[in-house]
Amino acid sequence: MVNVGIIGATGYTGEELISILLRHPQVRITYLSAKIEKPTPISDIFPKFRNRLNVTCRLPETDLAVSTCDVLFLALPHTVSMDWVPRFLKANRRVIDLSADYRLKDKKIYERFYKNRHRDVHNLKQAVYGLPEIYRSKIKQARLVANPGCYPTAAVLGLAPLIACDVLSGQEDIIIDAKTGVTGAGRRALLEYSFSELNEDMYAYKINIHQHMPEIKQELSKLGGKNIKFTFVPHLLSVNRGILETIYVKLNQSSVRNNQKRKGNKEKDLLKLYKNFYKKEPFVRIREGDGGIRLRDVVGTNFCDITIRCFPEKDLLIIITAIDNLIKGAAGQAVQNMNIMYDFYEQTALV
Amino acid sequence: MVNVGIIGATGYTGEELISILLRHPQVRITYLSAKIEKPTPISDIFPKFRNRLNVTCRLPETDLAVSTCDVLFLALPHTVSMDWVPRFLKANRRVIDLSADYRLKDKKIYERFYKNRHRDVHNLKQAVYGLPEIYRSKIKQARLVANPGCYPTAAVLGLAPLIACDVLSGQEDIIIDAKTGVTGAGRRALLEYSFSELNEDMYAYKINIHQHMPEIKQELSKLGGKNIKFTFVPHLLSVNRGILETIYVKLNQSSVRNNQKRKGNKEKDLLKLYKNFYKKEPFVRIREGDGGIRLRDVVGTNFCDITIRCFPEKDLLIIITAIDNLIKGAAGQAVQNMNIMYDFYEQTALV
Amino acid sequence: MVNVGIIGATGYTGEELISILLRHPQVRITYLSAKIEKPTPISDIFPKFRNRLNVTCRLPETDLAVSTCDVLFLALPHTVSMDWVPRFLKANRRVIDLSADYRLKDKKIYERFYKNRHRDVHNLKQAVYGLPEIYRSKIKQARLVANPGCYPTAAVLGLAPLIACDVLSGQEDIIIDAKTGVTGAGRRALLEYSFSELNEDMYAYKINIHQHMPEIKQELSKLGGKNIKFTFVPHLLSVNRGILETIYVKLNQSSVRNNQKRKGNKEKDLLKLYKNFYKKEPFVRIREGDGGIRLRDVVGTNFCDITIRCFPEKDLLIIITAIDNLIKGAAGQAVQNMNIMYDFYEQTALV
Amino acid sequence: MVNVGIIGATGYTGEELISILLRHPQVRITYLSAKIEKPTPISDIFPKFRNRLNVTCRLPETDLAVSTCDVLFLALPHTVSMDWVPRFLKANRRVIDLSADYRLKDKKIYERFYKNRHRDVHNLKQAVYGLPEIYRSKIKQARLVANPGCYPTAAVLGLAPLIACDVLSGQEDIIIDAKTGVTGAGRRALLEYSFSELNEDMYAYKINIHQHMPEIKQELSKLGGKNIKFTFVPHLLSVNRGILETIYVKLNQSSVRNNQKRKGNKEKDLLKLYKNFYKKEPFVRIREGDGGIRLRDVVGTNFCDITIRCFPEKDLLIIITAIDNLIKGAAGQAVQNMNIMYDFYEQTALV
Repeated sequence: MVNVGIIGATGYTGEELISILLRHPQVRITYLSAKIEKPTPISDIFPKFRNRLNVTCRLPETDLAVSTCDVLFLALPHTVSMDWVPRFLKANRRVIDLSADYRLKDKKIYERFYKNRHRDVHNLKQAVYGLPEIYRSKIKQARLVANPGCYPTAAVLGLAPLIACDVLSGQEDIIIDAKTGVTGAGRRALLEYSFSELNEDMYAYKINIHQHMPEIKQELSKLGGKNIKFTFVPHLLSVNRGILETIYVKLNQSSVRNNQKRKGNKEKDLLKLYKNFYKKEPFVRIREGDGGIRLRDVVGTNFCDITIRCFPEKDLLIIITAIDNLIKGAAGQAVQNMNIMYDFYEQTALV
Repeated sequence: MVNVGIIGATGYTGEELISILLRHPQVRITYLSAKIEKPTPISDIFPKFRNRLNVTCRLPETDLAVSTCDVLFLALPHTVSMDWVPRFLKANRRVIDLSADYRLKDKKIYERFYKNRHRDVHNLKQAVYGLPEIYRSKIKQARLVANPGCYPTAAVLGLAPLIACDVLSGQEDIIIDAKTGVTGAGRRALLEYSFSELNEDMYAYKINIHQHMPEIKQELSKLGGKNIKFTFVPHLLSVNRGILETIYVKLNQSSVRNNQKRKGNKEKDLLKLYKNFYKKEPFVRIREGDGGIRLRDVVGTNFCDITIRCFPEKDLLIIITAIDNLIKGAAGQAVQNMNIMYDFYEQTALV
Repeated sequence: MVNVGIIGATGYTGEELISILLRHPQVRITYLSAKIEKPTPISDIFPKFRNRLNVTCRLPETDLAVSTCDVLFLALPHTVSMDWVPRFLKANRRVIDLSADYRLKDKKIYERFYKNRHRDVHNLKQAVYGLPEIYRSKIKQARLVANPGCYPTAAVLGLAPLIACDVLSGQEDIIIDAKTGVTGAGRRALLEYSFSELNEDMYAYKINIHQHMPEIKQELSKLGGKNIKFTFVPHLLSVNRGILETIYVKLNQSSVRNNQKRKGNKEKDLLKLYKNFYKKEPFVRIREGDGGIRLRDVVGTNFCDITIRCFPEKDLLIIITAIDNLIKGAAGQAVQNMNIMYDFYEQTALV
Repeated sequence: MVNVGIIGATGYTGEELISILLRHPQVRITYLSAKIEKPTPISDIFPKFRNRLNVTCRLPETDLAVSTCDVLFLALPHTVSMDWVPRFLKANRRVIDLSADYRLKDKKIYERFYKNRHRDVHNLKQAVYGLPEIYRSKIKQARLVANPGCYPTAAVLGLAPLIACDVLSGQEDIIIDAKTGVTGAGRRALLEYSFSELNEDMYAYKINIHQHMPEIKQELSKLGGKNIKFTFVPHLLSVNRGILETIYVKLNQSSVRNNQKRKGNKEKDLLKLYKNFYKKEPFVRIREGDGGIRLRDVVGTNFCDITIRCFPEKDLLIIITAIDNLIKGAAGQAVQNMNIMYDFYEQTALV
C-alpha cells in the first residue's frame, strides 16, 4: 500500500485526484493540504467525499507531508510548486507536479511565459515530462514527473505520429483551434468566470500568446528534431469539462508515401500510421468512420480520442482530438504516471 | 422626450434597464453611473451596447444626475439606495428605486432583515410599492416608487386573488417552493456563483430566512387585512434567468362558494376568480389546460404567467407562477412603473 | 466471477449499468441486448466504451441470455419487462428488473397507472422491492428484485425514519416538491425533450398523477402501517442528472418526544432519529449544518443525501433529499442489490 | 401598414420572425401557416405569444395567403420553398425566402448539395441574395429575396473586406472553424439533438461537406472575381443560440500596402480597411482591443461582430465573427431585408 499526499487539494484538480485515488486499491490518501484558513476535514470542503474520506486538509508543511507520504501530488498554481518540490525530493519522496514549473526545459522561456524567476533550476534537469505515450520508460525511473498541461496533452498526442514520422510539409502551417470547458480556468472567484457571465457563451482568448504554447512547441520540436511552429487559438466553452482540438496541417505528400511504403488512399495510410503509433497505448483511441469525436465520449475518462480527415486535393489533414481536461489533461494522467512509477497495472483506478 | 438616468448601471438589472429603455421611443438615456474606477463608455462595460448607446458611465454625482435627468432608476445594492434617494427627491426628480430600501413600511423589520439602520425614514412613508397590478393609481402620482423584489412579484401576483377574495382556509398553510436562475444573485465575483461550481447543479438556500419574506408578508397581509403566514424555500437553478414558484395552499371551501356565487367545479371557479382579478392587466396571463407554466414562455418578457391546479378532496390548491427575474422581477416592472408615472402607454418597450 | 447480462442496454440506464459493472472486479459482462436493427458492437452505440468492452448488442433472445448469464438486469420500458422475467426465472437465473413491472404489489393499481394488463401476476408475489435500506435481508434471498423508481427512492428514504417512528401528525399534509434532470425521461427522440426546447427552462408536469405516486404510497403505507397520503409535484430541470426533493411535513409533536425519550431541540432530536435509522447504511448520508444538499454532491455517486430543517412554531419539518437518478435512482441501486444477492461487499464498484 | 405572412411559422425561425415583427410598428402579422394537423392559435403552439398575437396557424394555402398578405416570409425546409415561391410571385406578392432554394445561382450545385431537382429555375434568376451589406441596392428593387444562411452570413461578412480589396495571398489557405448553437439544427424530434445527448457536449460534423459551403463559395468568388477555395469545419456547441467563426487566412503582403497606401502596422491597416468597408453599416461592428468577440454580445441582436488579429511574421490573419444564428443569421436579416424593400428605417424592430 502506497501512501499518497496532495498539496493543493482544494482546487478542481485536487478534487479529481481524490476521486480517482479513492478507487485505487493499492494506495491510501494520507495527507491533504492547501492554502486554507484553518484545518478542515476534506469532506467539509467537498461534501461529495463525506463517508468516503476522513482526512483533514491543512496548510502544507514539509515534515508532516514527508512523514506520512511515499509520493506527493502537487496540484498547485504555477510558480508555487517550485518552492515545495525541492523539499520533498530532498527527503527522498517521489513527486508528481501538476503545475507548469518543471515542464519547460529552457528556464528563460519559462520565465518569459510565467513571469517569474525559476527558483529550482537544479531539479528542472531531472524532471521527466509525464506524457506516458512518449516517455513511459523515463517515467518508470523518475523521481520527479512534470505532468503535462491539458492543451499540450491533446495537441501533442494528436500531432506526434505525424511529426515523429515526418509527414508534415513544413511546420509553419499547423493551426490548432482549441476549445475547453470552464474547469480549465481553475477554481477561482472571478467575475469573468461567474455562471451568469459564461453560461450560453463562447469566445476565443489569449490568441497565440497562451502559456501552454511553449510546452507544445518544446514537445513537438523534440519529436520532430527541428523547430516546429504553429498557431494556437484557445476558446472557452460554457461546459464544465472537456477539451476538443481541431488541428489543421499541410501534408508532405512524398513523406506519406515513403513512410507507409504502400499505395492507396492517403487517409487510410495515415489512419494506419496513427494506429500503429499508438497500438500499445491503453488510453489513446484512434477513431474512424462516421461517429466523430465528441466531448461526451471522453469526459469522465482518461482517454484521448483522435480522428483524422484527409483532403488530398488540398494536401490538408484535419486532426481532431478530445480529452477530459481534468483527467487525461491533469489528475488522470498524474495517476497514470504514478501507476507507471510504481509498476502498478497502468489502468488501475482509471477505467 | 423624458431624460432618464441609471445609478448602478453595471449590474444585471442596470444592463437590462438599458436594453429596455433603448427600445422606448419616448425616453432618452442621458446619465449612467456606477461604482467604477474611472469614467468608462458603457459599451466598453457591456460590448453588446456598442453602436447602440454612446454614454459614459461614471461615479454617481448628485449635480450631474439631477441636471441631466427627469427620472432616475436606482439599481443599487440594498442599504446604498437610501443615501441617494433623498438627494434626487429634494431636487424634485422622480425616483424608481429597485433596491429593497423603500419596500418595507416597518423600518424595524427592514433593519432586522437588512442588518442596517434605515437612514431615510422620512421618505419611506411616501414611497409607493411598485406592483402595478395592485397599486396602479398610487404609482401614477408617486414621486418615489419602491420597485418590488423578484420573488415577491411572483408570489404576491400568484396569491393576491385568493387573499383579496378570502378564499384561504388559514394563512398558516401556505408553502412557497421557489426556484430562481442565477442572475438573481447579482453580478458578483464569488466562488459559489462561479460557472464550474453551479453548472448542472441545484440546491435550496436561506430556508425560511430569505430577506424577501417580510416583503411578501407585508403585501399579502395588507391584501388580506390580516397577518398572513407562510413558509418560503428558495432554490437556485443552473439557468441564467427566470423564477418559477410552486405554491401550496389550503382552501376555505365555503369562501369559494360565497365569493363565486355559483355552483360547479372548484378549479373552474378559481380560474374564473383569477381571470376576473387580472382581467385588465396587460402583463398577467392566466393559463389553463395542459400546457403548463414554464420559464421559456416568460424569459425575455415582462409577463407573469399563472396557472392553478385544484384538488378538492384535499382542499388543496397548487398555484404555479413564473416571471423573468430581471424583467417583471426588476427592470421591466421598473419601466412599467415609469410608463404609468408618465402616462405613457403601459406596454411601451415591454413587448 | 459472475456473468451478467443486460436486456435494454442502449438506454441511459443500460449505459450506466455498463459503466458501473465495468469497474466491478467480480463480474463479467457477457451479454447485451436491446431493440436494435442489427447486431452492433456496444462500442459503436456508446463510443465511450471503445477499448473497454467488446460485446455485441443484439435483439434479446432467451436461450442465448440464459446460456451466457448468471444474473440479468432488465433495463426495459414498463410493460415490456414482464414478458422476459418469467423466461429467465424459469431458467433459474436471478433477475434485477429496473422497470416498474414488479414494484406494485396490487396489480389493479399497476394496471391503472401503466395502462396495461399485468401478464405475470405469478411472479409479482415473489418480487422483492429493491430498496436495500428497508429490505436488505429479503434481497439477499431474492430471485427477482424490483428495483425502485428514481423519485420513490429519494422520497421513501427521506420519509422512512419519520413514518417508521410515527412522528407525522397526519398523512394528509405531506407535500413532495420534486425536481429531476432530463435523463429521467429516458433516451428518446421527442421534440419536447430536444435540447433547444429544454435548455434554460424549467417546469412542473404530471401534477399529482405521476406513475411513481402509487409506488411511493405503497412503500410509505407499508412502513407506517396505515394509508399515507401525499401531494406530488415533479418538475423538470435543464440538467442531465440528479433528483432533489423538497418535502414538507406536519409533525406530531408528542411522537417526537415519546420516540426520542429526551428533552431539547426538536431539530436535533429528529437529526438523531435520522442518523440512528440509517446508522449502518453505506449509501445514506445525513447532512447537518450550513452546507445544504445539492445535486453536485450526489451526481456520479450512489449516495442519497438527506437533511432536515425543523420549524417547531409551525410544527413543520422540511426534508431535502438528493440522489443521482441514474445511479442510486436506477443502475447503482441495481448493482447494490446484486452485491447483496451475491454476498459481495456492498460498496463494490459503487464508490 | 404592411400585412405580412409567415409560411413555416412553427419552427425556430418562424418563432423568431414573429417575435421581431411584433415589435415592428409598420407591419401587422395577418397570416401564419405551417405543416400542422389542424388549425391552431399560434399562442397554443408558442405560449410565449399569448396576449400578444391572436392569429391561427393553418396549413398553407395560396389564396388565403395572397389575399391577406403584402409580403410573405418563407421559413420552410429546403426543397419545399420552391413549391410556394412561384405562386406568391405570380400573385404579385413580395417574397423573402429563408430556405436555401434561391441562394445558389448554379442549379447544378444546388441539386448536388440539396439532393433534389430545382423546380423553379425561372425565378432563381431574379432572386436577390439578401445580404444587405453587399446587395442593398438590389434588395430595394427585389420581388424575391433569398435570405442568406447563418454560417454564410458570418463567413462572408468576415471575409468580404479582404476579398473585395484583394488582400489574400491565395484562396487555398482559408480555414473556417465554425461553432454554432443547437437551434441551427432546427426544431426537430431527433435523438441526436435531444437534451441528454447534447448537453455538456461539443463536436465537429459535416467536415468540408456542409451544404452552406457552395453558398459561401459563390459569394466570396463573386466578391473576389475569381474562384475562392476554403476549408469549412462546423462544430456543434451545447448552447441555444449563436455562431462564432474563427477564420484563418494567409495575407498577400503587397496588397495590404497597395490598398491602404500608407505605412505602419499591418493590423491597424487591416482594421482601417474593415472599418472603412462597413462604415455605413448599422449592423456590423468592428471590434478592436482586448475585449474580444463573444456570443453573449450578439445573441438576441441583429449585429455581426468582427475582430481581427494579425501575425505579420506568419503572414497570418485571424478573423473572428459572431452572430445570432436565428437573428442576423435568419429572421433578423429577413426583417432587415423587408425594411430595405419597403424603404422603412433599416433598424426598425431590430434594436
